[in-house]
Amino acid sequence: MFMCNAEERTDLMRVALGVEFADIVILNASVVNVYTGEILQNCPVSIKGKWIAAVGPHAASAAGESTLVLDAAGKTLAPGLIDGHTHMCFQIVETMVPYLMKGGTTTLIAETMEFFPAAGYEGVVEFLDSMKDQPIKVLATAPAGVSISKALNGLSHSKLGKLLERDEIVGLGETYWHAVLQSPEVFVPTLQSAMQLGKPLEGHSAGAKGKKLAAYATAGISSCHEPITAEEAIELLRLGFYVMLREGSIRKDLEQLSKIRQAGVDFRRLVLATDSVEPKELVEKGYLEVVVQKAIACGFDPVSAIQMATLNVAEHFGLDDVIGGIAPGRCADILVLPDIRTIAPEMVISNGRIVFRDGELLAKPRKHHYTDISLKSIRLKKTLKSSDFDIYVNGASDNPVAVSPLSLGEGAGVKVRIIEMVSDLVTKELQADVFPVDGKIATDLRKDIAKVAAIECRNGPGRLFVGLIKGFGIKKGAIASSDAWDTTDIVVVGANEEDMALAVNRIRELQGGVLVCEDGKILAEVALPIFGVLSDLDMEQLAERLQSVRQAARALGVPFDDPVLSLDTLTGAAIPHLRICEEGLVNLKDGKTLPLRVH
Amino acid sequence: MFMCNAEERTDLMRVALGVEFADIVILNASVVNVYTGEILQNCPVSIKGKWIAAVGPHAASAAGESTLVLDAAGKTLAPGLIDGHTHMCFQIVETMVPYLMKGGTTTLIAETMEFFPAAGYEGVVEFLDSMKDQPIKVLATAPAGVSISKALNGLSHSKLGKLLERDEIVGLGETYWHAVLQSPEVFVPTLQSAMQLGKPLEGHSAGAKGKKLAAYATAGISSCHEPITAEEAIELLRLGFYVMLREGSIRKDLEQLSKIRQAGVDFRRLVLATDSVEPKELVEKGYLEVVVQKAIACGFDPVSAIQMATLNVAEHFGLDDVIGGIAPGRCADILVLPDIRTIAPEMVISNGRIVFRDGELLAKPRKHHYTDISLKSIRLKKTLKSSDFDIYVNGASDNPVAVSPLSLGEGAGVKVRIIEMVSDLVTKELQADVFPVDGKIATDLRKDIAKVAAIECRNGPGRLFVGLIKGFGIKKGAIASSDAWDTTDIVVVGANEEDMALAVNRIRELQGGVLVCEDGKILAEVALPIFGVLSDLDMEQLAERLQSVRQAARALGVPFDDPVLSLDTLTGAAIPHLRICEEGLVNLKDGKTLPLRVH
Repeated sequence: MFMCNAEERTDLMRVALGVEFADIVILNASVVNVYTGEILQNCPVSIKGKWIAAVGPHAASAAGESTLVLDAAGKTLAPGLIDGHTHMCFQIVETMVPYLMKGGTTTLIAETMEFFPAAGYEGVVEFLDSMKDQPIKVLATAPAGVSISKALNGLSHSKLGKLLERDEIVGLGETYWHAVLQSPEVFVPTLQSAMQLGKPLEGHSAGAKGKKLAAYATAGISSCHEPITAEEAIELLRLGFYVMLREGSIRKDLEQLSKIRQAGVDFRRLVLATDSVEPKELVEKGYLEVVVQKAIACGFDPVSAIQMATLNVAEHFGLDDVIGGIAPGRCADILVLPDIRTIAPEMVISNGRIVFRDGELLAKPRKHHYTDISLKSIRLKKTLKSSDFDIYVNGASDNPVAVSPLSLGEGAGVKVRIIEMVSDLVTKELQADVFPVDGKIATDLRKDIAKVAAIECRNGPGRLFVGLIKGFGIKKGAIASSDAWDTTDIVVVGANEEDMALAVNRIRELQGGVLVCEDGKILAEVALPIFGVLSDLDMEQLAERLQSVRQAARALGVPFDDPVLSLDTLTGAAIPHLRICEEGLVNLKDGKTLPLRVH
Repeated sequence: MFMCNAEERTDLMRVALGVEFADIVILNASVVNVYTGEILQNCPVSIKGKWIAAVGPHAASAAGESTLVLDAAGKTLAPGLIDGHTHMCFQIVETMVPYLMKGGTTTLIAETMEFFPAAGYEGVVEFLDSMKDQPIKVLATAPAGVSISKALNGLSHSKLGKLLERDEIVGLGETYWHAVLQSPEVFVPTLQSAMQLGKPLEGHSAGAKGKKLAAYATAGISSCHEPITAEEAIELLRLGFYVMLREGSIRKDLEQLSKIRQAGVDFRRLVLATDSVEPKELVEKGYLEVVVQKAIACGFDPVSAIQMATLNVAEHFGLDDVIGGIAPGRCADILVLPDIRTIAPEMVISNGRIVFRDGELLAKPRKHHYTDISLKSIRLKKTLKSSDFDIYVNGASDNPVAVSPLSLGEGAGVKVRIIEMVSDLVTKELQADVFPVDGKIATDLRKDIAKVAAIECRNGPGRLFVGLIKGFGIKKGAIASSDAWDTTDIVVVGANEEDMALAVNRIRELQGGVLVCEDGKILAEVALPIFGVLSDLDMEQLAERLQSVRQAARALGVPFDDPVLSLDTLTGAAIPHLRICEEGLVNLKDGKTLPLRVH
């Protein structure tokens, strides 16, 4: 897939030797050499087909009648940027690609953990199909299948090996540390099979250090994008990890992490990555070029900053023979920058083709025809009723809240576990007494206690669990999403049961979405019909619609910067501490599933 | 082969977590961290089985009753050294291994180009068998099959792909640049098949620069051990090559190359390599530890020097997840050094086992039982007569000197090509008139013109070619070797035909060897019965015997430092310019085979 074939290689040799003309020759530019760390003045580059034929004075002689000669006097050439760790954030590949092209990201390595819960092995294959034959290289990691719910096990794990064998799968996606340490018998075989194929293991070590981090390293995990302080980054580097400095929509850690400059350590294993950029930020700010620019602003030498988004990440994935540098035999992925400190490409060459020039996109993404594998991923058999969201203290409900069958008198307190929001993403377990009315446990909005539910809708029979959440701020209505992280669930937080049911039923109707409703009316929604997590809207529309959902959520009282992210992560297996899935509450510290009631 | 299995990995995780005891814990040492470039003070390391479990303060807690605790106060730990490019120089693996162990080379990557001409695919497999289960890791590259002779094509090239698939084959061996450029149709398919398996391509670019070097890079070649100046090294680095700084018995380039320190380039792709160390040097001086020590003496920072012999080379071969650093999950290959500037290990741990301590070897190499595949590699059907070394000017000889069938009168001059020694290794074509006597062209020892012959003895029918050589210095007798580089030949230089025949016949008898004879007597010899190129003597004996051959050759008048090396390289496909094989003289500039006589 990535290597030149024998014929291309023979052609390249002929162009390098000067016995055949190049397709493109770039003259008079300075070139960032990521291998030596130099900036080479007045250094011609010749291109044949998708590939770089030669770099250096002699490259100029490959310019013939048929050659496009580009005068880049005063400009600086850098290799195309590589994002080594990201997630498709509501966006499909074809919608995202133009924004990558114009910013100079010529290779993207995407997680597929979202598509596996939604549609299993076949879903991941459909996503891989959507990546093919784009003007830039879109690659992926195989889903590691970490989840707090057992529903994921129903999907075909045995086919993960087949995914790992594919050329466009360049690693195993992030395998959260506590899952690996808690269940080595589950994960070690998967890690081994990836390593045997020479594919690196992406990590996620947030919160691990010392013994735990060492144990995680022995498992073979070789990167992490989670450190938030320079000290954490250094600990990871010392253990042999590639450390991805994250700067994207989920977190912006680069400024804090850039203090690593003072530590005098080698930067060869530092990598810049986004971990995802959500539509509004993508439209208004840009993508990885913004991160490289910020690294320079944070004091990194520009050449180091560029190495961190090119060669270093290519080496991590063992792709440095093909991408990551301007050298003979590598992909012709080249940015023409106004100068070394300004990461705003005036021209972007990707796979030997000019895809962006002077503000204008010159290549179009290939549109993918999605099939029912992705378009029919919400398989909830029937609509829900508001009573499905009742919590019966004596277990008399349809829902499987695992309370002991004690009959309690009115007014007697029941000790329950409540998900408490500690920040917009981090939660903890709060134990408190609640007082059932008519045998049911209700919300207590004065105390900011609302209901939260997770409804399995992809693989199982529509099992659901209803719990309580404190600190989400919701005072009325409901907010729901089918983008519930790491599970096959729809997640919903509501001030009342009617709106919770409405929200979930509307998602079922849309075959995926994120939305806000109040008093029986949908206030704002974004349909996510592809895998239940991706939109087919154009990027600006998508950004706008998502904003309207966020605003609507804030109007219900949710105080967080991004209420959708706060909601989606409630089922996540990576962010501490108490999470929810269709089976109950889950304490990430030990992976145990817990009932609502504390006996 | 190299990775831990699932069980070992699970054990490692338990030791890292402190819930199981380590086998070895090293306390109180400073540790060279090749990933960050730091030296970490007082940094415990724990080992379980063959692997490192943890590095850092918490590693100490894995010491239990069953643990061997090593106090390394005041010492410095460095990763085991890796020689990324070498040749077995008359030595078999089991003889060489003790010298590697005591110097701290825990991984060796050997070329197999010598065994392929001798015994084909099966010969390489036999060599790979001899590498197995040694106390250190001996790995290999697959033979690229470059030769000036067509006889090599008779060996099974189709099976090269099978070699490349083997775990212990970590790359494709050096493919000389001119061969790749002259015959892309032959070599590109081989290069492609190695790259498709993710195995790097070792290079040899001596003499190539500018266009030619760029063309060589486009072929996918990713390392070179041939630069002799800092400028050449920098050109290679800029093109994305890993540059191996060579310091061994063939050449000592490190001092000159160390000027690269002044260029301010990144050292991440610099590697220290021996390219082979011959027995006397190995016995008297040592191996790669000597090179690292010299790099420090040449002004490289000690940590950089260690990175150049550990992490950098591991990264080049994509083995950095297993070797090249002291980190969890890596092989427990650790040197205990007196201090960071003294590369003289007091203790060497290889694969988790103490193999050398306080001057004493604590592990024995595994002895390999060689078979007839290697032991019967000289397949010359009959003994040679002195008349086989006659050169008939009118082609009336048995030997296939391709002269035109003109009959020349006595005293008439004939223009012939003569190999002229320009240095002890480099040759050029000299054209001169010679004057046949009795229809035969004779040596002219006053003008230092002797005879040189190449006799195919491995694969074909014993074809031979006799030519002339000037500047070899031989005044009497003959010197012969079955270690003729890159061919299936025995090579012999002689002052008279009788001694030439004797020398070759003795090699036939020995099934391989290098020897000197005079007036019908063998003056000195080393039998090389294994593949016709390796000895089974112990190293000190071998060193001594080789020295006696060299001295005997010098006594015949050969002025070179190493007359054996000068002889063996006469058939080589890599060192310019005019070479000899059983088919004739070969001009390496264009790869053409030439007759003795000019037109």
